[in-house]
Amino acid sequence: MLKEIEISRAIIETYMNELLERLSLDVAIVGAGPSGMVAGYYLAKNGAKVAIFEKKLSIGGGIWGGAMGFNKIVVQEEAKEILDEFGIDYRPFKNGLYVADAIETATTIASRAVKAGVKFFNMVEVEDLVLKENRVAGIVINWTPVMMTGLHVDPLTVEAKFVVDSTGHGAQVSGHLVKRGLLQVPGEGPMWAEKGEELTVKNTREVFPGLYVTGMAANALAGAPRMGPIFGGMFLSGRKAALEILEKLR
Amino acid sequence: MLKEIEISRAIIETYMNELLERLSLDVAIVGAGPSGMVAGYYLAKNGAKVAIFEKKLSIGGGIWGGAMGFNKIVVQEEAKEILDEFGIDYRPFKNGLYVADAIETATTIASRAVKAGVKFFNMVEVEDLVLKENRVAGIVINWTPVMMTGLHVDPLTVEAKFVVDSTGHGAQVSGHLVKRGLLQVPGEGPMWAEKGEELTVKNTREVFPGLYVTGMAANALAGAPRMGPIFGGMFLSGRKAALEILEKLR
Amino acid sequence: MLKEIEISRAIIETYMNELLERLSLDVAIVGAGPSGMVAGYYLAKNGAKVAIFEKKLSIGGGIWGGAMGFNKIVVQEEAKEILDEFGIDYRPFKNGLYVADAIETATTIASRAVKAGVKFFNMVEVEDLVLKENRVAGIVINWTPVMMTGLHVDPLTVEAKFVVDSTGHGAQVSGHLVKRGLLQVPGEGPMWAEKGEELTVKNTREVFPGLYVTGMAANALAGAPRMGPIFGGMFLSGRKAALEILEKLR
Amino acid sequence: MLKEIEISRAIIETYMNELLERLSLDVAIVGAGPSGMVAGYYLAKNGAKVAIFEKKLSIGGGIWGGAMGFNKIVVQEEAKEILDEFGIDYRPFKNGLYVADAIETATTIASRAVKAGVKFFNMVEVEDLVLKENRVAGIVINWTPVMMTGLHVDPLTVEAKFVVDSTGHGAQVSGHLVKRGLLQVPGEGPMWAEKGEELTVKNTREVFPGLYVTGMAANALAGAPRMGPIFGGMFLSGRKAALEILEKLR
Amino acid sequence: MLKEIEISRAIIETYMNELLERLSLDVAIVGAGPSGMVAGYYLAKNGAKVAIFEKKLSIGGGIWGGAMGFNKIVVQEEAKEILDEFGIDYRPFKNGLYVADAIETATTIASRAVKAGVKFFNMVEVEDLVLKENRVAGIVINWTPVMMTGLHVDPLTVEAKFVVDSTGHGAQVSGHLVKRGLLQVPGEGPMWAEKGEELTVKNTREVFPGLYVTGMAANALAGAPRMGPIFGGMFLSGRKAALEILEKLR
Amino acid sequence: MLKEIEISRAIIETYMNELLERLSLDVAIVGAGPSGMVAGYYLAKNGAKVAIFEKKLSIGGGIWGGAMGFNKIVVQEEAKEILDEFGIDYRPFKNGLYVADAIETATTIASRAVKAGVKFFNMVEVEDLVLKENRVAGIVINWTPVMMTGLHVDPLTVEAKFVVDSTGHGAQVSGHLVKRGLLQVPGEGPMWAEKGEELTVKNTREVFPGLYVTGMAANALAGAPRMGPIFGGMFLSGRKAALEILEKLR
Amino acid sequence: MLKEIEISRAIIETYMNELLERLSLDVAIVGAGPSGMVAGYYLAKNGAKVAIFEKKLSIGGGIWGGAMGFNKIVVQEEAKEILDEFGIDYRPFKNGLYVADAIETATTIASRAVKAGVKFFNMVEVEDLVLKENRVAGIVINWTPVMMTGLHVDPLTVEAKFVVDSTGHGAQVSGHLVKRGLLQVPGEGPMWAEKGEELTVKNTREVFPGLYVTGMAANALAGAPRMGPIFGGMFLSGRKAALEILEKLR
Amino acid sequence: MLKEIEISRAIIETYMNELLERLSLDVAIVGAGPSGMVAGYYLAKNGAKVAIFEKKLSIGGGIWGGAMGFNKIVVQEEAKEILDEFGIDYRPFKNGLYVADAIETATTIASRAVKAGVKFFNMVEVEDLVLKENRVAGIVINWTPVMMTGLHVDPLTVEAKFVVDSTGHGAQVSGHLVKRGLLQVPGEGPMWAEKGEELTVKNTREVFPGLYVTGMAANALAGAPRMGPIFGGMFLSGRKAALEILEKLR
Repeated sequence: MLKEIEISRAIIETYMNELLERLSLDVAIVGAGPSGMVAGYYLAKNGAKVAIFEKKLSIGGGIWGGAMGFNKIVVQEEAKEILDEFGIDYRPFKNGLYVADAIETATTIASRAVKAGVKFFNMVEVEDLVLKENRVAGIVINWTPVMMTGLHVDPLTVEAKFVVDSTGHGAQVSGHLVKRGLLQVPGEGPMWAEKGEELTVKNTREVFPGLYVTGMAANALAGAPRMGPIFGGMFLSGRKAALEILEKLR
Repeated sequence: MLKEIEISRAIIETYMNELLERLSLDVAIVGAGPSGMVAGYYLAKNGAKVAIFEKKLSIGGGIWGGAMGFNKIVVQEEAKEILDEFGIDYRPFKNGLYVADAIETATTIASRAVKAGVKFFNMVEVEDLVLKENRVAGIVINWTPVMMTGLHVDPLTVEAKFVVDSTGHGAQVSGHLVKRGLLQVPGEGPMWAEKGEELTVKNTREVFPGLYVTGMAANALAGAPRMGPIFGGMFLSGRKAALEILEKLR
Repeated sequence: MLKEIEISRAIIETYMNELLERLSLDVAIVGAGPSGMVAGYYLAKNGAKVAIFEKKLSIGGGIWGGAMGFNKIVVQEEAKEILDEFGIDYRPFKNGLYVADAIETATTIASRAVKAGVKFFNMVEVEDLVLKENRVAGIVINWTPVMMTGLHVDPLTVEAKFVVDSTGHGAQVSGHLVKRGLLQVPGEGPMWAEKGEELTVKNTREVFPGLYVTGMAANALAGAPRMGPIFGGMFLSGRKAALEILEKLR
Repeated sequence: MLKEIEISRAIIETYMNELLERLSLDVAIVGAGPSGMVAGYYLAKNGAKVAIFEKKLSIGGGIWGGAMGFNKIVVQEEAKEILDEFGIDYRPFKNGLYVADAIETATTIASRAVKAGVKFFNMVEVEDLVLKENRVAGIVINWTPVMMTGLHVDPLTVEAKFVVDSTGHGAQVSGHLVKRGLLQVPGEGPMWAEKGEELTVKNTREVFPGLYVTGMAANALAGAPRMGPIFGGMFLSGRKAALEILEKLR
Repeated sequence: MLKEIEISRAIIETYMNELLERLSLDVAIVGAGPSGMVAGYYLAKNGAKVAIFEKKLSIGGGIWGGAMGFNKIVVQEEAKEILDEFGIDYRPFKNGLYVADAIETATTIASRAVKAGVKFFNMVEVEDLVLKENRVAGIVINWTPVMMTGLHVDPLTVEAKFVVDSTGHGAQVSGHLVKRGLLQVPGEGPMWAEKGEELTVKNTREVFPGLYVTGMAANALAGAPRMGPIFGGMFLSGRKAALEILEKLR
Repeated sequence: MLKEIEISRAIIETYMNELLERLSLDVAIVGAGPSGMVAGYYLAKNGAKVAIFEKKLSIGGGIWGGAMGFNKIVVQEEAKEILDEFGIDYRPFKNGLYVADAIETATTIASRAVKAGVKFFNMVEVEDLVLKENRVAGIVINWTPVMMTGLHVDPLTVEAKFVVDSTGHGAQVSGHLVKRGLLQVPGEGPMWAEKGEELTVKNTREVFPGLYVTGMAANALAGAPRMGPIFGGMFLSGRKAALEILEKLR
Repeated sequence: MLKEIEISRAIIETYMNELLERLSLDVAIVGAGPSGMVAGYYLAKNGAKVAIFEKKLSIGGGIWGGAMGFNKIVVQEEAKEILDEFGIDYRPFKNGLYVADAIETATTIASRAVKAGVKFFNMVEVEDLVLKENRVAGIVINWTPVMMTGLHVDPLTVEAKFVVDSTGHGAQVSGHLVKRGLLQVPGEGPMWAEKGEELTVKNTREVFPGLYVTGMAANALAGAPRMGPIFGGMFLSGRKAALEILEKLR
Repeated sequence: MLKEIEISRAIIETYMNELLERLSLDVAIVGAGPSGMVAGYYLAKNGAKVAIFEKKLSIGGGIWGGAMGFNKIVVQEEAKEILDEFGIDYRPFKNGLYVADAIETATTIASRAVKAGVKFFNMVEVEDLVLKENRVAGIVINWTPVMMTGLHVDPLTVEAKFVVDSTGHGAQVSGHLVKRGLLQVPGEGPMWAEKGEELTVKNTREVFPGLYVTGMAANALAGAPRMGPIFGGMFLSGRKAALEILEKLR
């Protein structure tokens, strides 16, 4: 017989054990958009203990809407191999552009990231950083709806060797250092797709001891151009951050 | 060289061709929650021309949050084979209950549905039905943000041999018939997990010529109990609707 | 040395064990106002396993504001002994009325209830009831901020031999039966302090198998008058419900 | 027989072809107020490929309300010839002022602009500029309701040889350069109708390579006075920008 | 020299004289959508004293957005002559459908209506009807922003021999009779373009002494189907109402 | 017989006498969180005339929610004696950490503070300070709901020898001096529990003649780290401020 | 020397004594619009103990805005004597209509009512009635901003021999009986100025033992027509209620 | 017989003539609070052509609420003669303080100001100034509800020899010069009733050619202390401004 409190018990115990087990991480990624999920995938696949914290209930970030709600995305030649790595279908358009389905892209990357060992904590917002001896040492988390409703509730902390800011053009995690004058954010530049793509990867780096930035957050921190609904730079940025961090974790 | 308007062109052309191609469907499913996506998967896998219309930007419905944000879900013995069909991992708890990860479940079902041939139209709301000669003959759609902002903008229509209402306990699609007195919705009953699971499958049926209901929408239309974060009934309901419709399409 | 994740771990483990331990209760009281807390106190003091679920972050219900924010409350002769039981100070006014401080009243009752063995779950809303074989068998709970933000997140369930609706004039718990036509709520009558006080105690009863009502919820369900910032009836109602339930639990 | 999907198809195909055809423009005008529409009219009439992007659903900008909702506007002697060009009726008042109907003015200019070859894209917001090699090279667009609801959806881009900022006193298009420190906006001055009228025309110019400003946006960028419900300066500003751009396009 | 108060004076005097002059009308049309403007055009062209009251600042109703913001509209064979009457361009699609530009349609009809003698009062809401001896005898008006902000401000009245409800599917003017039980509004039916078009014209009639309904308001009052972004029925409905009223005015 | 106006009279008279009696205080504490209530307790216990002003209806500040709504709090070895002073239960965890119930902690401290002689004024906001001859000389108060609704209502004033800012990380009372350039608030630093706990006590001091800060407000004014759901520093800070002020009052 | 707390003390003591003194009234009038203030004036002038409770901060009700913000009001021949009684200026228009200034009317009536002995309690909302032995025996009041913010704060009661509902077309006081089925409110009819004026006076009466209605509330309760910005009926209604109540009080 | 359009006509004609007649003023006062109304009274009484523009529907500003809603105000010895001038009752308290009723004060000053010749325009907001040759030459006005709803509607202008900013602590009229760097506003200081009262009168002056400030706006512009619910300084400030302006007008 199916008892309600057995269902409650199954969920609470499983979740809480995972949460307790992930209070201390190799890498805490903030933001489940394309660069964050790709970073998580490569980190987990190579053995790092990693979790992604996403403030929305759903994951996927800016992929879902394609462009103006026309739910297709574009990827250029250099990043095609990442679509292949995840097994996402695409159709060649012209001039080295490939078109993929936004829904397939968002869900397939996430699905594969979980299977690679990434743990997602969704509906959880990072309200601050742990900072010790001038190094980022973890994140301070709370339920998103608690933050949205402005209720006065203290947060919890998660310890991490590296924190990755994959929160998009707002660069919200880095923002916690910016508001204390420890970092500067010029904000992203006007659109220039080619330059934006190129610089996203270049700007992916450790901007403060213990803190990496990827994707649009990387460009925002460097004042580089935005690039619109083309996702190659996002994917390559996530992979680059993962590989560099793996190197340092060793 | 990477030109912005080539990116624009690639997305517009691809999306518009898909939209034009799907203006006439075998089955229009409304709501990308568990029962709708499972129905879509089985329909597409068996050759039906099917699209899922989801009013949110992200798909997944009520799966993401697990229970109270503890992002795990429970599935009972009878529905384990559907987890297997999609390749979703699970851990046995006790008394024939299995625990799966909410993120993995939501994204893997969606990812597999797209690959099976389902086309998702997200950020699109169904504002009414097409009704001819007392049979549901299609859906009337609009952009969700247009609906949210109350802008006065006319909709478009999509023709379908069958419409499936997978919109959850609100049963919003059926609601368009309810407000004209063509159908009755008593609303879902208090919780009783076992009865709820059992009745979800039983209540999955053609409630009006051309209109199927699945999942919580099926229970809401029958006044049956709700069941909480257990998803076996959802999966089985989606599959049942798919198989019955496939039969009729032949 | 004081480590952040030790603090996190201390809180998560302690809370979770309490939550798991209270998934099955003798009595689930909903609403931490005067009648609910007094009921909880007498139940726990006499050995029942009891928890109070309160949708706000703070407990106390309608006591805090006194009348129009003048934070004093009035208690009549018959209920003076309950102030004595909790050790709350009061000053005689005239005609058998006593004035107590609202802050002292709210916090002292709560403080004493916890010490008597009551477990409070605050910021938790009861979104429905468990109903089996025509008897209330538990409650369906969710985080209040999740409810406030309208996020689509499933609830958990708590099993209880008796549920007590102490939610005030809205009688929200009973409301879940009312909307299914299983119970009727005429709503509270206009003010008449004397009649209201007298009837509050009289209307405290089991209104549906497994469901008790106390305080203003009791009057609302009976269509009896409201009574304003006089709290004797509230206290006596809570005690009456506790004593009747204790009798049945034996 | 009239089929719904034929109607859908007619609209989607016609619109998409126009959109694809206008992804590359001679001139992209932002804002369908008086100066923008007059500029568009003269540009199209003289053979330029031009489109106007308006964030509202309706066009007309600040003309509709006359002054305080008294829907009449005033035009001075110097601009009377533009009313004549469009065939708008007017009545002489005194001191060289003419009064026209606000509704007639707004709709007649728009109607004539379309016939001259202007394509309007309404309910479309310009969320950024394309900037290459220090020259404005196009606009970045999105649906207005998507912007209003804050949904996370990527934009599309339109390429243009010249962009005209006709967005009124907010000078929103120029604002995208201002926030990156590439341009300065002192904001419009207090009212002085005569000076304002005179300076509007004088301030109409190319403020950044590839970017023109007209009407109130021109005055806002120069810190010149505002002028209230008199529209001669608006009309002359639009015509001036058109003629200068036509010169450069040759 | 251009003086600010001369501009103020010009506008106030002109508007006020028009307002005073139109306090007593042959026909008061409510709603500046397609059917209302077409009705106004034919009435004014044939000598009736007519004004259109529109609650928005801009006129045009549901024309602007085409379908889902794709700003094109469709007109069928039977109504092509009305596009010709107004001088609106169109392109044949197939099956007797013609596609016109939404912006051109909205502005050209309005522009021509003003020239024919229609006075528009925009940003003015009809908050009630004047009803004497069981006949509609005028309208009760207020500023829309006053209504939106809920400020407590009394309205003014305009006397009319006939009132035309062209307020679309909400049928708001008729609603003032409905809420007093003097008229019934079943609400519009689900979509069926062909039937909807046909019935719009048929349902255009005097529903209460002194009150005509046109367009979607006509269908809403009769419970007839809606029809989407096809406008022939709207145009023909407006013309029919105009011709019937002209007959009665003689 | 129980008369309504006797109840009204009892409350109004008692409250007003208390309010009049407390218009002139030794110490006005703003904010009924842990440090403010502990300060109030020690001040009152030692004979000072003290009142606590709290803008919410309920007292307790950030204690109620524990961490992320898991309603437990942590206290370290050094502060255990304060739990003992108030008679609050706790359980040892490890490494010198103790876990207490959030509800018991909040209500027991408040209950004991009232009994020690503290008068709480809740639902009252401090909208400014009284400042004379460069010394803080009192507070300016208003009803919180009046502030929330933006109604234009003048405040009242309360005179005090010392004002204590216990308003948490916003340091709202000190903010009234900050906005006039009389004080600086760097804002609290990122999390570092150990340092934060240590500095809270150290930063508790008289920051301006007549103005003390405690708890998180003390850290915010010094730019010191935050510390999460550990409350020892809060308690010790409140006690320290009380003892220093008592010294000065003598 | 001018001390802040002397100012506080002066206000608190004066107000509280007035409040205590008016807890028991001859007549409690709810709503400080034209009919309520005129009723209050005549009652006080003839010796009754009367107070007016107004939920807004300012008094005057619907007088301020004249019609559509044109701040003039109209009074007919029959009511001219009431303007004379209050000393309000007016200008004859024609057909027995007189025009007065809205600001002068609102403020002069109020000013004279206070001098006649009326006590106004503004920013105070009547949230319910006291009802004993089937007779209205008083009102239940709360601060308006408390009601607006939905804070959970108990009300106070005021005893009265008669309660007058002068709350306008909403008839909010009577509404407390309506929602318990003790009275019926058909709602006001469409506009017909002449009939409305005539019936306002006729419908002014005791609708329930102890409860009078005046002005628009009287018409709303009788389903009579509304009348727009003409105020003679309002004035005469207030006077009629006053005279009838005075008779009964004797 | 009473005709609706006669009422409409009476109001429109009377109001419009007053508006046209007051487009050119000696003095335009902005804000109908105590200092503005007193200034208006003395100006009109001495023959100046003056109007007061108030953004709310009701006049009175901060007088209505007394202190914390206890609707009494305090006036000191020096200003008692102004209460006498207006015929407002008061009761001596002690130390040279007098208590008056807030309602009587607000309405009596306004009533008397109208009779002295002041024209009030309420529900009208001043959205900017007219500034010519470095002198304030008038105000730019719009309907308040138009401003509140953000509708895009142009304003009208009123010409004035002097403009008086009586808008309270926000000093909104002066703000239009501040935002252009033509004036500085340090903002009002913390409370110090005695100093505040004294400085209000001293700070009342012509702060820019053609622009006077009174009351709290005068103190805000000078950074002087606020003073709470004591109104003597307000009254004296208004009178001082009036007398100085009258001198200059001669």
